[in-house]
Amino acid sequence: MDENRKILGIIGGIGPLATVYFMNLVVKKTKADKDQDHIPMIVLNDTLIPDRTDFILDDKKPDPAVRMISDAKKLEENGADVIVMPCNTAHFFYDEISKEISVPMINIVDETVKYASENIPGIKKLGILATMGTVYSGSYRRCCDKYGLECVVPSEEDQKNLMTIIYGQVKAGKKADTKLLMKIIDNLENDGCDAVVMGCTELSVVNEDMNLNRKDIIDSMEVLAEKSILACGGRLN
Amino acid sequence: MDENRKILGIIGGIGPLATVYFMNLVVKKTKADKDQDHIPMIVLNDTLIPDRTDFILDDKKPDPAVRMISDAKKLEENGADVIVMPCNTAHFFYDEISKEISVPMINIVDETVKYASENIPGIKKLGILATMGTVYSGSYRRCCDKYGLECVVPSEEDQKNLMTIIYGQVKAGKKADTKLLMKIIDNLENDGCDAVVMGCTELSVVNEDMNLNRKDIIDSMEVLAEKSILACGGRLN
Repeated sequence: MDENRKILGIIGGIGPLATVYFMNLVVKKTKADKDQDHIPMIVLNDTLIPDRTDFILDDKKPDPAVRMISDAKKLEENGADVIVMPCNTAHFFYDEISKEISVPMINIVDETVKYASENIPGIKKLGILATMGTVYSGSYRRCCDKYGLECVVPSEEDQKNLMTIIYGQVKAGKKADTKLLMKIIDNLENDGCDAVVMGCTELSVVNEDMNLNRKDIIDSMEVLAEKSILACGGRLN
Repeated sequence: MDENRKILGIIGGIGPLATVYFMNLVVKKTKADKDQDHIPMIVLNDTLIPDRTDFILDDKKPDPAVRMISDAKKLEENGADVIVMPCNTAHFFYDEISKEISVPMINIVDETVKYASENIPGIKKLGILATMGTVYSGSYRRCCDKYGLECVVPSEEDQKNLMTIIYGQVKAGKKADTKLLMKIIDNLENDGCDAVVMGCTELSVVNEDMNLNRKDIIDSMEVLAEKSILACGGRLN
């Protein structure tokens, strides 16, 4: 094996479409002329991990960390050099999982906020579109604090609509209401946000379909894909 | 774990885009209302498997079977109940790999020819679009014999053009010449073929973009995805 080429371990299935979408981003963003130039990956598309938001909002529900830790260990045992979870909500469990393994785990939340702070000139307020689980867990808020940004989430009504888009539409394989999503983004920017994070991998899927290509919309999946390629010794397209 | 829900093991990376495309088909074709309804998968996106066609055409080149066998064993050790290779050419090594594991391995070539024989009324001649490696290995010819069909491959010039589409365009991340591909299909049908198989996973990727939806074009990846879902206890959309 190429000594500079590391194996990317993916804790997947959270959700399955997001996993496939993330892998697709890694393949498409890797500079490659042939199969062998691409990033080797080990993927556990573990669809039996219990719902993350359910547990974060009600800790009597099954704890998803148990399976995620065993998946992370399995990936490490099978040779993964770097581990990622293409799911923002799952990063509520980031510390709990990463302390159980000895290989590095890229943090999608930290990398996304860092990207915003480095790439949006004069940024002060960052809007976050994410699940209730992610919002409630405060992982974006803590990272915004770290990089000196104010973290803004949608109004209660907009957040409710966002959950309908994520759970009732994308996760269920239905068409997303993109007009409604754009309204939620507009409301955040009218509220003073300098940029808005697509902080849920299901929203990244919608983002690709909309093909907006707006610099003020930062896609956490794209940030994670690029970081993953570079961490594994690949080159970006 | 749900007792009827089996884990799909994927020998991937041959090529990486085809692996992602196959996983996407499995997710989209599975009837699911939530993450937990989807098929659990373990995927080795092993981009370091040497080129299959290179070895089939010149056995002094590195033998890809060595890594594919170790991948199949690794998948089995990690709990895969059913194994697939989303790569037609790799099926040259099917017998060599499947005899080393004790879980079933779905054969994309066999299932695709069987599908054609059962779903195209009065079919006699089946055209095969595949890599030189697949054609040379004779795996489609042997399956056609088994199901009483005549196996037809493109002319030497068309086959050369097909290799350019697969290697020079799709695997290199460039746009495929769909006009040229349609001409190759037309030539096979003018030659008396009742149906044409997309017998290379890279061509399935092009097939989706063209969105032809023609019953006489049978996509081996779609056949494999549906078989995989059913074999793992999932339901089709």
